[in-house]
Amino acid sequence: MRKIEIVQNIMEANDSIAARNQGLLDKHGVFAINIMSSPGAGKTSLILQTIAKLKNKLSIAVIEGDVASTIDAEKIESHAAAVVQINTRNMPESCSLIANMIDCALKNLPLGNIELLLIENVGNLICPSEFALGEHKRVVISSLPEGDDKPIKYPMIFADADAVVINKLDLLPYVDFDIPAFRHTVEGLNPRAKFFEVSCKTGTGIEDWCAWLSDEIENHTHKIMNKGG
Amino acid sequence: MRKIEIVQNIMEANDSIAARNQGLLDKHGVFAINIMSSPGAGKTSLILQTIAKLKNKLSIAVIEGDVASTIDAEKIESHAAAVVQINTRNMPESCSLIANMIDCALKNLPLGNIELLLIENVGNLICPSEFALGEHKRVVISSLPEGDDKPIKYPMIFADADAVVINKLDLLPYVDFDIPAFRHTVEGLNPRAKFFEVSCKTGTGIEDWCAWLSDEIENHTHKIMNKGG
Repeated sequence: MRKIEIVQNIMEANDSIAARNQGLLDKHGVFAINIMSSPGAGKTSLILQTIAKLKNKLSIAVIEGDVASTIDAEKIESHAAAVVQINTRNMPESCSLIANMIDCALKNLPLGNIELLLIENVGNLICPSEFALGEHKRVVISSLPEGDDKPIKYPMIFADADAVVINKLDLLPYVDFDIPAFRHTVEGLNPRAKFFEVSCKTGTGIEDWCAWLSDEIENHTHKIMNKGG
Repeated sequence: MRKIEIVQNIMEANDSIAARNQGLLDKHGVFAINIMSSPGAGKTSLILQTIAKLKNKLSIAVIEGDVASTIDAEKIESHAAAVVQINTRNMPESCSLIANMIDCALKNLPLGNIELLLIENVGNLICPSEFALGEHKRVVISSLPEGDDKPIKYPMIFADADAVVINKLDLLPYVDFDIPAFRHTVEGLNPRAKFFEVSCKTGTGIEDWCAWLSDEIENHTHKIMNKGG
């Protein structure tokens, strides 16, 4: 039982750091989303499309989580107000971002000048669902070539998502993916999830995704202001 | 340091169980491969293609690793000599198969009647690279829609692979994937890896993959027989 106890301790410590991170974000009026997916499903592409669409309205920063390399941060650098790269290789948890990595990253971001923080998690459908980071919303991207059975095989991450983005819609003619069946499975796990069908390559569906995100930011700001007043 | 010590203990215990698994496989003349990839890259499809091609020559069993569900095992059931499903949800390690899960699975397989054991790991490019299972060869599948940068972001799993299967070749006209650049990156991490370019959908390249696998089985059988004699 020793290992299980230690895991519980780690999770409890993580939850309390995550709550502290969220307090800090709220203090500065920063809305944060945690973007999770398999490797290569389109996290960086969705971030780039979101910045392109919203950067005239909002100041946007990005935290890039990767096992190794800085190539995603480099892709984003010239587009975002600020970018912090986290490499998880050689860390005790290499398969996911965890709250204390975000704690460190927040110390390196100009929080007073940021309204939206996009956190790109490590590409993985398992570990990231276990670690709260302090985010306000959790988003899972599922891309068509992965197949429509992912929510059946990796239920936890879908059960906990506020939004599910179905990406690579441009590949629909070339792959076997039953969108209604996929949505039906996710709804069975999580009736409150919002769905967005997009192609980050062509831009299809990005408008709806950004409209939802803008609404969520606005709702959250009102909630925080009412709490403060 | 307490957590790191415990992780070291777990890894050492895993390595010794993996060595015992390999001893048991060798005793029965079973050649085992550990198939790893992102979710949806084509592990099950490669297994089905491999069985279709080799089942008249070899008796083939499968161990299916999934976080949840038995859908892959059901797909394979009627094709393989035997299938064991492992669900990792709620286990201390849910993000990868580990050696003691294989130990349990081997107790449920008719090892005396099996020549090739295909182990489908959990869909994940991070955790599975850390756990030896007792396999003789490690195979990583990378599918074109994931992008050619995966070896840069997830180097460990590629550095350790005996073979790298590039799957979903049928999607090459519709995605941005530079095959020579991908191979070049992998070769930088791992000069000994063999490459196979396949489409599990159309069957392209499966012949070469199965020829390599057959050769490896034959070489291994000779090695074991010489050792025994």
